[in-house]
Amino acid sequence: MPGEKVVASKIALTYKDEIRDFLASLPLNTPAPLLVGLLATSDPAAESYANWTKKAFEEDGLRYEVRKIEEQHVEEALAQCNDDPNVHGIIVYYPIFGLTPSYSGSSHDDYLRDSVSVQKDVEGLTFTYRTSLYKNIRYLNSNPNSKCVLPCTALSCVKILEHCGVYAKSPGVHNRLQGKTCTIINRSEIVGRPLAAMLANDGATVYSCDVDSIYKFEAGGLRRCDEGTTVKSVVEISDVVVTGVPVKSYKLPTEWIKENTVVINVASFKNVDADELLKIDGVKYVPMVGKVTVKMLERNLCRLYKQYHMDRKGDGKGDPRDALVKQARDFAAIAAVGALSLLALKLAGIWRHCRK
Amino acid sequence: MPGEKVVASKIALTYKDEIRDFLASLPLNTPAPLLVGLLATSDPAAESYANWTKKAFEEDGLRYEVRKIEEQHVEEALAQCNDDPNVHGIIVYYPIFGLTPSYSGSSHDDYLRDSVSVQKDVEGLTFTYRTSLYKNIRYLNSNPNSKCVLPCTALSCVKILEHCGVYAKSPGVHNRLQGKTCTIINRSEIVGRPLAAMLANDGATVYSCDVDSIYKFEAGGLRRCDEGTTVKSVVEISDVVVTGVPVKSYKLPTEWIKENTVVINVASFKNVDADELLKIDGVKYVPMVGKVTVKMLERNLCRLYKQYHMDRKGDGKGDPRDALVKQARDFAAIAAVGALSLLALKLAGIWRHCRK
Repeated sequence: MPGEKVVASKIALTYKDEIRDFLASLPLNTPAPLLVGLLATSDPAAESYANWTKKAFEEDGLRYEVRKIEEQHVEEALAQCNDDPNVHGIIVYYPIFGLTPSYSGSSHDDYLRDSVSVQKDVEGLTFTYRTSLYKNIRYLNSNPNSKCVLPCTALSCVKILEHCGVYAKSPGVHNRLQGKTCTIINRSEIVGRPLAAMLANDGATVYSCDVDSIYKFEAGGLRRCDEGTTVKSVVEISDVVVTGVPVKSYKLPTEWIKENTVVINVASFKNVDADELLKIDGVKYVPMVGKVTVKMLERNLCRLYKQYHMDRKGDGKGDPRDALVKQARDFAAIAAVGALSLLALKLAGIWRHCRK
Repeated sequence: MPGEKVVASKIALTYKDEIRDFLASLPLNTPAPLLVGLLATSDPAAESYANWTKKAFEEDGLRYEVRKIEEQHVEEALAQCNDDPNVHGIIVYYPIFGLTPSYSGSSHDDYLRDSVSVQKDVEGLTFTYRTSLYKNIRYLNSNPNSKCVLPCTALSCVKILEHCGVYAKSPGVHNRLQGKTCTIINRSEIVGRPLAAMLANDGATVYSCDVDSIYKFEAGGLRRCDEGTTVKSVVEISDVVVTGVPVKSYKLPTEWIKENTVVINVASFKNVDADELLKIDGVKYVPMVGKVTVKMLERNLCRLYKQYHMDRKGDGKGDPRDALVKQARDFAAIAAVGALSLLALKLAGIWRHCRK
């Protein structure tokens, strides 16, 4: 049984339906959730990504608006979006300031990334979501209506692995990848590192390869591998290999890959020779993830909209004490009406008594 | 008028009184606020700092308890302290893991630092307080009962500068250092960098000097200075100079210091030749800040205790909706009692009517 190419656009259809159903469930004449993209970088890749997002959003009935701004006004524009109740999601395109230092210690771009409201962070990259992911905390403040947002590209890989049958279909949430070994050749803060944590949180043993080191992630911890561990040695024992090398010339040697492995390429370049790879028995190869990634972006926007921006009726939005206040007030009002009625009856009685 | 040496222990007395008054205001038989120190480092400096803290706390009637733990159990011990309502403040002594990488991207020590509950972070070093400081946000969620905690050593410098008359006595909060120039020779995350932000937030122009760069901090931003800017050139125009160079041989050339400058040494080594310095007219020299720093630690503990751990009655602790719920319930109860009384009267009336 030779290898099989898995097309992301097919997997994306499931989520297209999910988003359509969500939009159909909204009250009539409700404007669709709005994502605002802040574009202050001169990087042409960012602009084309913005255009591509706009197209996908329009097709699915969601709203996307790109705002071009001067870099010195990004912080102000971001604060405005955070405060604007008509904006439901925010995406900032980087790099803007690159490694320019910030007041806060990290780079100014990192500072901006952490300044996005958690209620609008469709990318799941702010401190709160990042930390929750690494601590395997899935709901903010244990509130079932505040599910944490996960980074889109990493999440798309998880969904693809589910589709490819790598995840066990057991009901246990935390160990559906138990016994699986995964190698991720990329350790960026937005793809490789969160993906390593997500797979480890689900029970896998994950090797995270960067230019100069290999780390082993397992639930609850990680350690640097010794010198003897190589990309070859970890790929050879892996059931899942994710490539994300941003270099055109890089090709993963296909002879390292064992039968029945799922190989996902998240890089914009093709990191694997598809023809050679597909000769290996039972291999599943996903050459691009973009179509699923953009659905995850849409899904994150819908989730944030549902969790924080919908006018819901006592279904747990915000603090449950709001409902308690309402109940107590209602009760007070009923009791007060009752008391007044009885008082009226009493007065009527006294009146009748006096007339006698 | 020659220079004057300012002794930190004298300044500390004000805060000693403040803490005594706070403790006296607590209900009878209330155990004093408890700070727990987690000691998992083999660094002898940490142990002696812990002992010194214990001594100061005992003198001032506060409780301090050091817990020695194996490094692999720090995270667990920290989680226990976060959850324990009898622990009101937590201090973790670093380095424990040094630069060992963490699941979360930063070092494992950074990860631990950010894992301390904001309700117990006496050092003001967790992400929330750090970010608030850099954004010049002084209260969490704009709640006047949730004042942000500031790092103790940096805060001690501010209090010393207030004592030395550098701060204007105007009522404006944000600009009491307007027109002042400060140089800080140290840009660590726990002293130099937060101090630079604090002074800039108060209106000063701050030069932050590190081994390889000089940054200019001003409210709302910072920039790297050009090659022509040197420690000499910024010290020469400074009204305040803070030295924090952790090297025994380092001596700040006193000929750079202008008249009437306030010089504070936060390093454990003496970074300035006191005799030479005190020859300069109007100079104020603070050779050590430790006695004020420990008072700031005590003060932070008392503040956290007051803000989050005291059993207060409707004075804004936690969510103001709690008070609303209580009011609504009280009103409901009164109305219900009223209704029942009237009903009783009515029934009595009917009863009397029937007997007639």
